[in-house]
Amino acid sequence: MKKISLLGATGSIGWQTFDILLANPNEFKLVAFSAGQNIEKSREIIKKLQPELVSMQTEEAAGTLQKEFPHISFTYGEKGLVEVATHPDSTVLINAVLGSVGLESTLAAIRMGKTIAIANKETLVTAGHLVMAEAKKYNAPILPVDSEHSAVFQSMNGENKKRIERIVLTASGGSFRDRTRDELVGVTVKDALNHPNWSMGAKITIDSATMMNKGLEVIEAHVLFDMPYDNIDVLLHRESIIHSMVEYEDTSVIAQLGTPDMRVPIQYALSYPDRLPLANGQRLNLAQIGQLHFKEVDFDRFRALKLAYDAGRMGGTILTAMNAANEAAVALFLQEKITFLEIEECIERIMNSHNNIALPDLATILHVDSETRKTVASMVK
Amino acid sequence: MKKISLLGATGSIGWQTFDILLANPNEFKLVAFSAGQNIEKSREIIKKLQPELVSMQTEEAAGTLQKEFPHISFTYGEKGLVEVATHPDSTVLINAVLGSVGLESTLAAIRMGKTIAIANKETLVTAGHLVMAEAKKYNAPILPVDSEHSAVFQSMNGENKKRIERIVLTASGGSFRDRTRDELVGVTVKDALNHPNWSMGAKITIDSATMMNKGLEVIEAHVLFDMPYDNIDVLLHRESIIHSMVEYEDTSVIAQLGTPDMRVPIQYALSYPDRLPLANGQRLNLAQIGQLHFKEVDFDRFRALKLAYDAGRMGGTILTAMNAANEAAVALFLQEKITFLEIEECIERIMNSHNNIALPDLATILHVDSETRKTVASMVK
Repeated sequence: MKKISLLGATGSIGWQTFDILLANPNEFKLVAFSAGQNIEKSREIIKKLQPELVSMQTEEAAGTLQKEFPHISFTYGEKGLVEVATHPDSTVLINAVLGSVGLESTLAAIRMGKTIAIANKETLVTAGHLVMAEAKKYNAPILPVDSEHSAVFQSMNGENKKRIERIVLTASGGSFRDRTRDELVGVTVKDALNHPNWSMGAKITIDSATMMNKGLEVIEAHVLFDMPYDNIDVLLHRESIIHSMVEYEDTSVIAQLGTPDMRVPIQYALSYPDRLPLANGQRLNLAQIGQLHFKEVDFDRFRALKLAYDAGRMGGTILTAMNAANEAAVALFLQEKITFLEIEECIERIMNSHNNIALPDLATILHVDSETRKTVASMVK
Repeated sequence: MKKISLLGATGSIGWQTFDILLANPNEFKLVAFSAGQNIEKSREIIKKLQPELVSMQTEEAAGTLQKEFPHISFTYGEKGLVEVATHPDSTVLINAVLGSVGLESTLAAIRMGKTIAIANKETLVTAGHLVMAEAKKYNAPILPVDSEHSAVFQSMNGENKKRIERIVLTASGGSFRDRTRDELVGVTVKDALNHPNWSMGAKITIDSATMMNKGLEVIEAHVLFDMPYDNIDVLLHRESIIHSMVEYEDTSVIAQLGTPDMRVPIQYALSYPDRLPLANGQRLNLAQIGQLHFKEVDFDRFRALKLAYDAGRMGGTILTAMNAANEAAVALFLQEKITFLEIEECIERIMNSHNNIALPDLATILHVDSETRKTVASMVK
């Protein structure tokens, strides 16, 4: 039985992870989890899965739950994340928090040699060089949870990695894929949140519409699979049935396909190298789908994707700046303080004025992160 | 360096195998090959690849070449096939002969523990139970060369075979895929030989048009991958880009894709478990292709496929009878002695009157094979 710590229990990924844990009680045991402020959801998880340790965002929330569950340990805040991530009983850490908040706790878990199932792409984007170096040093496997990277990972199963020619990440194109750039003027938050294929959190749905999500995935693929940017392609594929592909030197392409169900990559990261039946999983029926479409991506149309490639090729703190600018700008868009196209403009302005530092340490990354957020905030005042 | 014996040098697969051997002189060495009556092609192969042993179909052809190449050993006929297959220096046997002629020599190579790269599906169809039992007993790996089975094999790489839910073989539908059954009346040999995607030999192109080819592949998949017939599907996919797929219990589908180039599966069988760059290989460009289509197969339209499933589910000598009836009927069609639809009728008549024997030995298989051919021949007199 695998014992599991989970960061980010009450988000979209966290919630689906519980589905998997509940469906496979003989395979997995939840040891510890962190949640935000959602006491109700946390209560439900605690009742069903009986973890040993729970960390809430605030001392107050932790105190409230402690009274209800006196036999369970509660903690909170930043140190709580580290406690959950480094719980001595767990061998697998699922990092499903949003944004760059999971960085320190993930590094702490890596240093204990735990397997990291990573759904938090910002950790790899901003500190990929640190994470992968530590993972190598401490023999901690880093397994992708993202649908695309899981597809790539599955398509590399049993293969000689030296024979990989190219990674092809597929992209649905997001909620505005059929609009021209001109037609993006004045789009609303509600429009942007209406993703055609996947049901996800708000931040990632907006990132999907700008394709910054795919940009972050390109960087993540570069980090996870040690692949040059010139060998990572993005292919528009509106049905999101082929989740991604790997091309080999013999021109063979191996792909992973399926219905859009995030539980598949989550469960795969937990069951790897084995697979498990998926409870109530919907099988792929290609005859019913009938057609799959593919199109080259237009970098003028999807400028955020271009920016991500640019930042990736440069490396260093500009990755942190780009990611923080994106997070801050998306938050402002969701608050209806800036327009959809201003998200990209904001990222570009930050990148253009960034003083890049190569191979930054953690303190530098965190400093650039918070400074960038301040700068973005000051832009809209 | 892998040392290789090849049965069926001057056919379509044999010829493409030489391309691969010539392109990878540091990886592969041709030790022995058998050819039919084509002295010219055989001469070219001998000059370029300098094998130790060559077997021709007739004593006369062998004698002619012996005079030209006194330092090389020549042999001929049935015993020649066995000598090539069992050459002591080779570790890999590629069986690329057409029809059931390669059976005895392949079994002989299996008993020496050689790796068998099998492009001859009839061997597996008619004597799958013998071949796989011997392969298991003598630890001889059986690697598929067929495009579809190679795709399945590649899609199983590194996986726990117990987690396989289903094999999905894709089918282009052959040269008459857009015709109704009524529109098949009176089609010519020339029409039938015009395959939309693959350039192959005449027999297999006709089998592709009747879909008996896919039927044989279903049986081959059953034998090679020990998969029940209920878990082997055929999916119409006109572009032949997805070469086949494997569905797992977690609903994940792994697929192998590529441009239509038989050198890919041939080379994979030779380089396995590694891959090698493909000389002048054409990379897959899905954006250029734009769309992939999928459709359920209609067993009323493709009656030969239905017959193959029926024979497969029954097992025994009916598989040999079906295969021999098909080979004989296709030959008659190519000689314009029967019509296209009479191929199926002929197979069906043979199957309906067949006295099935379960788990036949080699002598029984060969007897049923020759008797069936005689019966089919007598039908058109």
